[in-house]
Amino acid sequence: MAGIIKERLFTPGPTPVLAEAQARTLTATLHHRTESFRHLLGETLENLKYFFNTKNDVLIFTSSGTGAMEGAIANLLSPGDRVLVGTAGKFGERWLELAAAYGIEAVKVEAPYGQALDMGEMGKRLKSEGPFRAVYVQATESSTGVMHDARALGGLVRNLPETCLVVDAITGLGTTDLSPDDWGLDIVIGGSQKALMVPPGLAFASVSEKAWRLIERARLPRYYFHFARERKALAKGEVSFTPATTLVVALHAALEYIRRLGREKLIANARMLAEATRAAAQSLGLKLFAERSPANALTAISAPAGVDSGAIIKELRARFGAIVANGQGSMKGKILRLAHLGYYDAPDLFAIIAALEIVLTKLGHKCQLGAGVRSAQEVYLRLADEGTQAAGSASRS
Amino acid sequence: MAGIIKERLFTPGPTPVLAEAQARTLTATLHHRTESFRHLLGETLENLKYFFNTKNDVLIFTSSGTGAMEGAIANLLSPGDRVLVGTAGKFGERWLELAAAYGIEAVKVEAPYGQALDMGEMGKRLKSEGPFRAVYVQATESSTGVMHDARALGGLVRNLPETCLVVDAITGLGTTDLSPDDWGLDIVIGGSQKALMVPPGLAFASVSEKAWRLIERARLPRYYFHFARERKALAKGEVSFTPATTLVVALHAALEYIRRLGREKLIANARMLAEATRAAAQSLGLKLFAERSPANALTAISAPAGVDSGAIIKELRARFGAIVANGQGSMKGKILRLAHLGYYDAPDLFAIIAALEIVLTKLGHKCQLGAGVRSAQEVYLRLADEGTQAAGSASRS
Repeated sequence: MAGIIKERLFTPGPTPVLAEAQARTLTATLHHRTESFRHLLGETLENLKYFFNTKNDVLIFTSSGTGAMEGAIANLLSPGDRVLVGTAGKFGERWLELAAAYGIEAVKVEAPYGQALDMGEMGKRLKSEGPFRAVYVQATESSTGVMHDARALGGLVRNLPETCLVVDAITGLGTTDLSPDDWGLDIVIGGSQKALMVPPGLAFASVSEKAWRLIERARLPRYYFHFARERKALAKGEVSFTPATTLVVALHAALEYIRRLGREKLIANARMLAEATRAAAQSLGLKLFAERSPANALTAISAPAGVDSGAIIKELRARFGAIVANGQGSMKGKILRLAHLGYYDAPDLFAIIAALEIVLTKLGHKCQLGAGVRSAQEVYLRLADEGTQAAGSASRS
Repeated sequence: MAGIIKERLFTPGPTPVLAEAQARTLTATLHHRTESFRHLLGETLENLKYFFNTKNDVLIFTSSGTGAMEGAIANLLSPGDRVLVGTAGKFGERWLELAAAYGIEAVKVEAPYGQALDMGEMGKRLKSEGPFRAVYVQATESSTGVMHDARALGGLVRNLPETCLVVDAITGLGTTDLSPDDWGLDIVIGGSQKALMVPPGLAFASVSEKAWRLIERARLPRYYFHFARERKALAKGEVSFTPATTLVVALHAALEYIRRLGREKLIANARMLAEATRAAAQSLGLKLFAERSPANALTAISAPAGVDSGAIIKELRARFGAIVANGQGSMKGKILRLAHLGYYDAPDLFAIIAALEIVLTKLGHKCQLGAGVRSAQEVYLRLADEGTQAAGSASRS
């Protein structure tokens, strides 16, 4: 019969938007050179620091996350500088592309798709092939669903006074415990359309004092993503170029929600969903693409032998309106990626797992209906009542 | 840990609103005595007839459904008239209260809570205790979750030229096949906050030619809910008193969605969800409150022995933000009512069943996690591919 089908996002960005934050944008007729906007921006920056778990400056750009990644190349480096890049997927490769675009020599430490970076190897290369002006990695590699050990890497880099650690935490923020100040993560990159529950269009970069020192001397060309100029502008409560004002309004509201919920609870929520998803997938006889060091931000699940993941994704969309991400590049057709970042709750997970069971059954993969849901429910029951109960939740009411 | 909790309505009205319909209200600065509003109202009325499956006039009132129910008393009857009321729950009892408020003698045919009206008995009383000016029933009794046989009743009343059949189909419309013109349902009552996916505030009444004839002679006092005056106003593309314009805008948009989906598919959707819910409840060892002739609009499930349904409802809300209705009056604490009317899809159902399994487990009711979901999935698999496949769906994109 095919009746009502609601569209639901399970992609690792964009993520479901927080409706109450979107609603605030409807009456936003702000001009960005006014006291109202300065006030809004000031509060937003304070709450962004909370979200980033840092005392460092956090810069805002109207761009996708990649824009701020480019800024972390162009602002830190000078012609002739060398960098170390840890790559384990498409987003790691983006660091290499960015370095190449600016003529910067990058030494690459690579992990196979589905595996995390070997930080021992990173440390060895840091010593044997340096000096490097900067080290670039992801906190979580969202093309494969792995989490890297940013803390260990911070420990390796923090004692090198002329080397900065840059972490793309676009999907790591709000899903993974990160402590930039304690761990020595000098530049941390974020984006609005991830755990922040806001549509795409804003990118963020937190910048440490050590990074500012190096930025002063860096000579690569930059204009739009000019960190030092933005820092000055923010000190006056402004941004240099016309910002996407409605996105800032939504971000301001979403950050209020996140503060109410608590950063730790947002992260624990993703951790619970990720663990439940892994348990569900295994109950259904599916293999996890990232078996060790899986990310909380998303789970990459291998399609059963003989089934193209694209067929699963197509059927999830046609039957249930559920938008799930395929693999990228050589992983296309082999995996599906289910996100847990931002505004998802346990019933969302139960729904998508039940839908996946039906689709797998329809595509000829033998699995017991309800078995995946059951495993997810068991994880929920084990984790949901840890610490404070419902008191600490943030419902809309 | 208690992380993100989204609020979700599973109540038999209000139901989840169609966001795209709500969005249209944001720019509605309509005045109701303008050509734009007349145009909007005209299209809305045409589509309401489609939704009601009737060629009769459909009147619109700014009120809850009860207002239009009152109108069906005040406009049809004169002092001294007698009516037959079929009652099987709180909403049947409302007809008795309305008759009493206007000093009208009502003969009552009653079915126990959880059972449907015995139409043989209704026929006997019609003959033995008449004449009656009108017969009042529900299409579906949403306090108990039963469906009455409106068609059979129509067959009994249609040959009585001085008797009208009035059907409160507030939760019946869009969940149950109803054919007012073929079945002789003279007045059919609807409300905006049910299968129409619009917030509360609008009530509807379709009125047959036979009913108009009786209305002409009826002498009970009426003013706001004056059917004949509204019919005249509508002929000029207006309503008599200031209407809730934004609700009309939302209704206009929601009816466009329903036309795109198809009335039959909307009904089949509710039927599938209801059947799946019944199967799920039984798998979990729960008894259905309405075992025979259950409604598609909602399912009333008896709480397990020793468990107050209020405790289940409270826990569903606290853990999962799911708002489920308790029983009313003497049924309070004994049942919970899960709605299927309007904007619900299969993943919504899988989610609430999984949540219910967890809550039951927490409250000490033995049930197998995932077993209810599995039964619901099996019903989905059996019914979802009947007739046309996804081609006939209405997704938001």
